Amino acid sequence: MSDAARPITVHDPTLRDGHHAVRHQLGREQLRAYAAAADAARVPVVEVGHGNGLGASSLQVGRARLADDEMLSVVREALAHSKMAVFMLPGWGSAKDLRRAVGHGADLVRIGTHCTEADLAERHLGELRADGVEAHGVLLMSHMAEPDRLAEECVKLVGYGACGVGILDSSGHYLPADVTARIAAIRAAVDVPVMFHGHNNLGMAVANSVAAADAGAHIIDACARGFGAGAGNTQLEVVVPVLERLGYRTGIDLYKLLDAADIAERELMPAPPTIDSVAVVSGLSGVFSGFKARVLDISRREGVDPRDVFFELGRRQAVAGQEDLIVDVAAALAAKD
Amino acid sequence: MSDAARPITVHDPTLRDGHHAVRHQLGREQLRAYAAAADAARVPVVEVGHGNGLGASSLQVGRARLADDEMLSVVREALAHSKMAVFMLPGWGSAKDLRRAVGHGADLVRIGTHCTEADLAERHLGELRADGVEAHGVLLMSHMAEPDRLAEECVKLVGYGACGVGILDSSGHYLPADVTARIAAIRAAVDVPVMFHGHNNLGMAVANSVAAADAGAHIIDACARGFGAGAGNTQLEVVVPVLERLGYRTGIDLYKLLDAADIAERELMPAPPTIDSVAVVSGLSGVFSGFKARVLDISRREGVDPRDVFFELGRRQAVAGQEDLIVDVAAALAAKD
Repeated sequence: MSDAARPITVHDPTLRDGHHAVRHQLGREQLRAYAAAADAARVPVVEVGHGNGLGASSLQVGRARLADDEMLSVVREALAHSKMAVFMLPGWGSAKDLRRAVGHGADLVRIGTHCTEADLAERHLGELRADGVEAHGVLLMSHMAEPDRLAEECVKLVGYGACGVGILDSSGHYLPADVTARIAAIRAAVDVPVMFHGHNNLGMAVANSVAAADAGAHIIDACARGFGAGAGNTQLEVVVPVLERLGYRTGIDLYKLLDAADIAERELMPAPPTIDSVAVVSGLSGVFSGFKARVLDISRREGVDPRDVFFELGRRQAVAGQEDLIVDVAAALAAKD
Repeated sequence: MSDAARPITVHDPTLRDGHHAVRHQLGREQLRAYAAAADAARVPVVEVGHGNGLGASSLQVGRARLADDEMLSVVREALAHSKMAVFMLPGWGSAKDLRRAVGHGADLVRIGTHCTEADLAERHLGELRADGVEAHGVLLMSHMAEPDRLAEECVKLVGYGACGVGILDSSGHYLPADVTARIAAIRAAVDVPVMFHGHNNLGMAVANSVAAADAGAHIIDACARGFGAGAGNTQLEVVVPVLERLGYRTGIDLYKLLDAADIAERELMPAPPTIDSVAVVSGLSGVFSGFKARVLDISRREGVDPRDVFFELGRRQAVAGQEDLIVDVAAALAAKD
């Protein structure tokens, strides 16, 4: 493969993205046990927090069992080698949340925005940069923008102060060639490390992550057993040995990583994520899997096929926050029947 | 992608390979429900039987709940459009088993051998050909042979009478480039349809199947929800829309396929397969996942790490039937400690 022996930084959001799968209910001992195991395996970065990031715990998206401060304190204490990362979506979290997280020892801050709205990260990235904090800007639902547009948004993020950029395949829509085109465009446009974060709706999370690395990505996100919303994320203990076999260096101890994944399966989750039929449709239609419960509910009420609703939402380019569209789409489909 | 709009025949061994995951205990109503659903979705071929094929039900590899004849009768009755296929490993099954299966309406017979032992299929393929039965020869543990050797074995199979050939990634070891090289070599050597059968130990079953199609494979094996031994097979209802998105034609109805997969998850399996740590090691080491229980057992007794045992078995090129090697390897590792 290209770029043999190139180092790859694996970034592990098990304790943040995985939170979506357990309604943000992880407790202190769970965080401690997994963070310590990931640290022992020398996973370079461990991200922690509410699934929607700092400050997001709320009735609307779910109250976390622990406050942000508690999560950060527990994980900070468990990490001797790994960096601790946090995630923040402007609007859900605030500059105050960021300051508190840095105060609790966050080494790396990611500011996430919709893929065409990098400007929402401007102020936060500027302030973090001024404070000397390592801050990255990352783009959600990135399949909704073409490679050139993503590259432009990443150039903006770097201009705002980001010392790393990246794209999330939030709805698990990509096939490898899609990732190759986007990472290559971003690599050609910026000089900072580039990240790829995959979801497994189409069974392609590992292959997409390899495509990202082959296209020049420096940072690969992956979660133990794929622990994450819906069909889950790129499976950490799978992608690491696959990358190593292809000639990349991760610096991670395989046996200790497998041990950490066993701990994650036993301690964090009722069961590892699998790809159910709704996840397939969500991935194909490019609709955020967080819509699932409401789509099923509203479709039942309107007597329409939830799969039709997903595909129509995809055609209308629905994004998180536009849950009202579900009702419109379902009603329109019902009227057509 | 290459070969856009090329037809692909999807072959569905859910009711045969999936049997491994439930100790061959599927009952009549389970077979009937899934076969009818796959038929309704227009899955071209439905394979049924004991996990190890015709005649394999035994104390050694597990007694099936139903006799071969019963399984075939139930599935035959449920299929209006799909072909019914059976699988046979010479030694486990006999010419008599094949004749009975054909008598029960099997449309397609696969004879499987270890990847370097095509000659064991000679007599059976010849007899089936003489009887006018559609018979394919398929090579197990195919990662243990180089592309050229696999091509030579496939040429032999065609010479014996096979009107289709293929390779199984029995231990889930392949990455896409490995599949590309092997399918391309086989395509260049024979003029009959070529098949690829993937397992998901390294999270690559879907990507490997796409690589096979892109390299010219005509037949792709896949199971509902990946139902199969260990980490499971290529997930049927995922690979079908992925292939369609890449421009291949499968002739399968997506919604009815998703319904069939839902039925499979509900009726056939305790839970869909996931990739556990042993599956990762089994895939990396290239050792048949059927060794798992004995490796864990013997490793515990000898006080050695089962992962070391797997990797050493891989180095020694252990194949199914060589379970005695496990004891030797574990003892050698214990002595070294």
